[in-house]
Amino acid sequence: MKLYGFWRSLATYRVRVALALKGVDAPEVSVNLLQGAQHKDDYKSVNPQSVVPALVVDDGAPLFQSLAILEYLEETHPQPPLLPRDPRGRARVRGLALVVACDAHPLIVPRIRSYLEREMHLDEAARNRWLQHWTLLALETLEAHLSRERETGRYCHGDAPTMADICLAGQVLAAGYFDVATRSVPTVERIFAECMKIEAFERSQPLKQPDAPKKPSH
Amino acid sequence: MKLYGFWRSLATYRVRVALALKGVDAPEVSVNLLQGAQHKDDYKSVNPQSVVPALVVDDGAPLFQSLAILEYLEETHPQPPLLPRDPRGRARVRGLALVVACDAHPLIVPRIRSYLEREMHLDEAARNRWLQHWTLLALETLEAHLSRERETGRYCHGDAPTMADICLAGQVLAAGYFDVATRSVPTVERIFAECMKIEAFERSQPLKQPDAPKKPSH
Repeated sequence: MKLYGFWRSLATYRVRVALALKGVDAPEVSVNLLQGAQHKDDYKSVNPQSVVPALVVDDGAPLFQSLAILEYLEETHPQPPLLPRDPRGRARVRGLALVVACDAHPLIVPRIRSYLEREMHLDEAARNRWLQHWTLLALETLEAHLSRERETGRYCHGDAPTMADICLAGQVLAAGYFDVATRSVPTVERIFAECMKIEAFERSQPLKQPDAPKKPSH
Repeated sequence: MKLYGFWRSLATYRVRVALALKGVDAPEVSVNLLQGAQHKDDYKSVNPQSVVPALVVDDGAPLFQSLAILEYLEETHPQPPLLPRDPRGRARVRGLALVVACDAHPLIVPRIRSYLEREMHLDEAARNRWLQHWTLLALETLEAHLSRERETGRYCHGDAPTMADICLAGQVLAAGYFDVATRSVPTVERIFAECMKIEAFERSQPLKQPDAPKKPSH
């Protein structure tokens, strides 16, 4: 296997964590999103959407979209499971994951930030308000579920990490990128801290990647 | 079962089509997104994210996020399948579905349109350019995959409809909402036409719902 990713990409982070949890080795090829490497022809032949991650698993076309890759890893490397067994629990975990992956993260990625700046001519303050607003809203949605639902345990769903925790952890990292305070989402904060006790979550963090800058600039 | 939705919601459309394909009866409760009914307390107790759809399946909390609901229906009502059997094929179908569900549709929903207008004070022309840009970009991404990959058949993946077709069909409907021409994505157009020959896709369309206005205004 080979993972195309970028240190700062939180969608790549999800796949990195899942691979580490499942003990699957997939060397990472860095695609520098900040320099536009995703738009070069050689990467577009890997993923025509010009986004990371993409996972090469065999001779076929690379897999794309982080949650599709997580489901693939779950089906082909079932241990440890990243989804519960019962359909209702699986729906809850997937729902929590999708709150982040659909309704929050796609609003803050480089192509959006670039559009807000170059096409809409919004100043930095307005762009930051956008980034902060949607980042916090997703965390508040997670909090509303996690704080009131009995399925919540040490992690989002019971006492083992799932796809929901992987997405939650990435979303809390996004809050760090954009200086979003997380005091108002204590259950999210607690679960994030639990996740970071697990080596797979901790060592997959953006700033711990070999292609990350020594002195970070977001 | 009971489906909370709205005639115009393309995420609701996905669930409506899946229920119809699988022959599952779930009466729909209309949540008027254009009048803000999703923000009222009685709906927030159904779905704290204040979005549709939500599916009530039993005494437990309603299921949320359209793709989580589709996966739940697939696991509990496996016939006819909306995913292929092989993990690689499933990853491709999920990847195509997520191109729409993550990277396109969340950019055009009411809460985003409202933010662009009320918080960013963008005029209608700028807002329409945003809606059209992201809607077309997702269709072009689908086209890039569908036009060159051998798995493409009558539908996105072989000759039976899958979750990818459900998302594709919704995205083409979005193009209709925002007057986006689809001439540049002929494979997408062809597959959309195939989908609309199927009653479940056709009768689930926004304007065919009982809560749709007689004289449509987008």
